[in-house]
Amino acid sequence: MSGKDFESLEKVLEAHLPEAELKEARRLLFGKELKKLDLPRSAIDAAGQQDFDLKGYVFEASPEQLRPPRMVRVGLIQNKIVLPTDAPVLEQITALHKRVGEMVEVAAMCGVNIVCFQEAWTMPFAFCTREREPWTEFAESAEDGLTTRFCIQLAKKHNMVVVSPILERDEIHGGTLWNTAVVVSNNGNVLGKTRKNHIPRVGDFNESTYYMEGNTGHRVFQTQFGKIAVNICYGRHHPLNWLMYSVNGAEIIFNPSATVGLLSEPMWPIEARNAAIANHCFTCAINRVGTEYFKNEFTSGDGKKAHHDFGHFYGSSYMAAPDGSRTPGLSRTRDGLLVAELDLNLNRQVADKWNFKMTGRYEMYAEELKKAIQHDFKPNVMKD
Amino acid sequence: MSGKDFESLEKVLEAHLPEAELKEARRLLFGKELKKLDLPRSAIDAAGQQDFDLKGYVFEASPEQLRPPRMVRVGLIQNKIVLPTDAPVLEQITALHKRVGEMVEVAAMCGVNIVCFQEAWTMPFAFCTREREPWTEFAESAEDGLTTRFCIQLAKKHNMVVVSPILERDEIHGGTLWNTAVVVSNNGNVLGKTRKNHIPRVGDFNESTYYMEGNTGHRVFQTQFGKIAVNICYGRHHPLNWLMYSVNGAEIIFNPSATVGLLSEPMWPIEARNAAIANHCFTCAINRVGTEYFKNEFTSGDGKKAHHDFGHFYGSSYMAAPDGSRTPGLSRTRDGLLVAELDLNLNRQVADKWNFKMTGRYEMYAEELKKAIQHDFKPNVMKD
Repeated sequence: MSGKDFESLEKVLEAHLPEAELKEARRLLFGKELKKLDLPRSAIDAAGQQDFDLKGYVFEASPEQLRPPRMVRVGLIQNKIVLPTDAPVLEQITALHKRVGEMVEVAAMCGVNIVCFQEAWTMPFAFCTREREPWTEFAESAEDGLTTRFCIQLAKKHNMVVVSPILERDEIHGGTLWNTAVVVSNNGNVLGKTRKNHIPRVGDFNESTYYMEGNTGHRVFQTQFGKIAVNICYGRHHPLNWLMYSVNGAEIIFNPSATVGLLSEPMWPIEARNAAIANHCFTCAINRVGTEYFKNEFTSGDGKKAHHDFGHFYGSSYMAAPDGSRTPGLSRTRDGLLVAELDLNLNRQVADKWNFKMTGRYEMYAEELKKAIQHDFKPNVMKD
Repeated sequence: MSGKDFESLEKVLEAHLPEAELKEARRLLFGKELKKLDLPRSAIDAAGQQDFDLKGYVFEASPEQLRPPRMVRVGLIQNKIVLPTDAPVLEQITALHKRVGEMVEVAAMCGVNIVCFQEAWTMPFAFCTREREPWTEFAESAEDGLTTRFCIQLAKKHNMVVVSPILERDEIHGGTLWNTAVVVSNNGNVLGKTRKNHIPRVGDFNESTYYMEGNTGHRVFQTQFGKIAVNICYGRHHPLNWLMYSVNGAEIIFNPSATVGLLSEPMWPIEARNAAIANHCFTCAINRVGTEYFKNEFTSGDGKKAHHDFGHFYGSSYMAAPDGSRTPGLSRTRDGLLVAELDLNLNRQVADKWNFKMTGRYEMYAEELKKAIQHDFKPNVMKD
């Protein structure tokens, strides 16, 4: 049973554990049991016809006296690329627009208010090749590129906030590239863009071949449905990155990613969920799915023979809540749309219970961190 | 099947999953499969006779050319209290010394170099009662109290570093109390003490009734077997706390804890493991086990009736490595000794692969955090 054939941990547990053990295993693995979201028949049928998984859950909060529930429906989309990686660039982009656009139609049937796509969703994740062409041609203007214009249409049509992570071409600054998420408001305005803060130099590839660390800080987007932020991919390994989005007020932090099995899979269920717990907010981890083949072989600095693929993107997208509960993951092998209804009141309720911001002692850390970055920093070590 | 009867997730998976599925489930849940440590027959027999679990694992690293392997054996002890909570104070302390001392004997048979006990290991976890007496009588001098003298004997006898988390009475500063871990070197010197940095005000109790936030910063202890630090209990929810121990050079961070099922169990496997990943170090999560009954009833500010216990301490102690792998947990219901052989070279190997310190952008965070703590901080929010 290789990684590619194993559809999901959740399915295996369901298939084999007796009911009482399954319930307890679920509690330990996923926290408080979530209600399933009642999804419309039309959406379920459409997902079946279009061959992707559709799952829905509800994160509830307690009723309050002064605030009504603050319900928002969030949709995460994970998908394979549609055309081979050597098809013409524009055809690849258009095919992905079509596929994801259809999935957004289903999200709309499910009442989704905010949808987020996977990292660099309009292209294969080609950075492992270290080739310039044709991959840099996938880069677009964040403000008025083909893909942003497409997302504006989706947003207006469905009254939906669209978070669209793309490879950005920044003409204002010498035509440099960035790894960027564009946030389109549900009225169709481009609310702004936010860039990947931490760039990997790991395993099969070094993304800094293509773009540098983002310079947009930890901005948060006030949408009609709540305050959101986007921590792109490798930023999920940096707890301070999550923290600063939260300090700026993010209620939901999206983590659009592209990562493969042997590299990161045991870390995947840990990091975004830890961030939800540590920051009293919701987090949404999205990973692409499938294996992408490239025409020219490439090596990976690991002593192994040249090869044509980066490995299996294992999907497994999920959402996590501040109380430590989480949804099961989407499939490891199939396209999918995960819908969850969140009551954002849960954030403050959990914060008032656990008080991590109140007990965080950030003054001490600001001071210690300031010292620690000095080149002549003396670590605090006690010796015999 | 209630929380108390469910011994461990690992046992349930082993009992019900077919072999291929079990292997893949283990990979997803625990990361790279760990070798079992070959433990001496005498140790296994002694653990059996004394009615506690004994488990051993190996975290391997790759061979290097310039550094020999840096092997260290670490032991974690989780245990129930021995006598009822209304037994005389000194008898309770002595009974715990005896029990844990016997477990340390077995650790010594297993070649353990560094042993760590659970939080406030010489007493019931009585802070939920909010009573002063007799609980404050369990407090001792960190430098030369009864328990530190006991640990010095253990350290000398077994050539073992002993990490001993106690309730500290600080006579130098007005007899105040602290939640402190004392680190005794394998030669019997008290290497120093380190205090709990973050104090909970959550659920059943508020520990700040008894002691305040620690003032010993993020010191690290250079032992003969590697650099260690101690992040006590509630500090595990604060990613910055783990980070600063790591920035000061900690190779192994212990997290002696006392926490119960309904409060924190789904978070337990997440937080210490996330810290190992995020900081390129080993982490050791230790939780006490069993239910502790108190003579006087107490309420918990949750609208429920007064009761005599704080809930079930679920044990489940484990170790996690920087590559995301972890040991299975000890039992949720029984005393146990977890032994692992770590090759500390793994820390730098994983750091050189993933580069979180190199890509951490700490200057940006020191600056942002400094701004964020100001009372007139303006969050970075983009609006329509």
